[in-house]
Amino acid sequence: MELLLTYDVSTTTPAGRNRLRRVAKLCEGYGMRVQKSVFEIVCTEPELLTLIDKVQRIIDHDEDSIRIYRVPKGSFRTVRMFGTAKPLPHDDALIL
Amino acid sequence: MELLLTYDVSTTTPAGRNRLRRVAKLCEGYGMRVQKSVFEIVCTEPELLTLIDKVQRIIDHDEDSIRIYRVPKGSFRTVRMFGTAKPLPHDDALIL
Repeated sequence: MELLLTYDVSTTTPAGRNRLRRVAKLCEGYGMRVQKSVFEIVCTEPELLTLIDKVQRIIDHDEDSIRIYRVPKGSFRTVRMFGTAKPLPHDDALIL
Repeated sequence: MELLLTYDVSTTTPAGRNRLRRVAKLCEGYGMRVQKSVFEIVCTEPELLTLIDKVQRIIDHDEDSIRIYRVPKGSFRTVRMFGTAKPLPHDDALIL
């Protein structure tokens, strides 16, 4: 399945920047970081449960916000982009 | 239709913060700001074209990045949220 994970974290603090790095590293095992805190994820249901479990251990539940949207298959190829946004190839997405 | 607009802008500069505010104000006429730079949009195809035109006049095309994903009807009610993320009611979304 294809998902969009968006992560709102305060990057004005070292701790926030560190959490964003760790979430980014984790998500990049399942897909692509397409913006600072937006990730295009390709995974199975069990892998999603693992990802959610790991993400929940990283974020600060009182400060950070994670939203995970299910998007139709192929959405990553039909996304409309403006400015510096670029399409990113998903075929070599690492599934760990 | 339902869309997710994500906006990557550097908020370390006054100009970037100003652009984010203007994009947020614009998008809030079509839906909800659910995270600092993530907007849940409900609009028609013609309204989307107007929104895209207006957004393109605000952003810095060399620095900022906009991605617009089409999501299935009802996605905003099935989004999975963690941390401080909250569901937001869309029924009174203003369509300008």
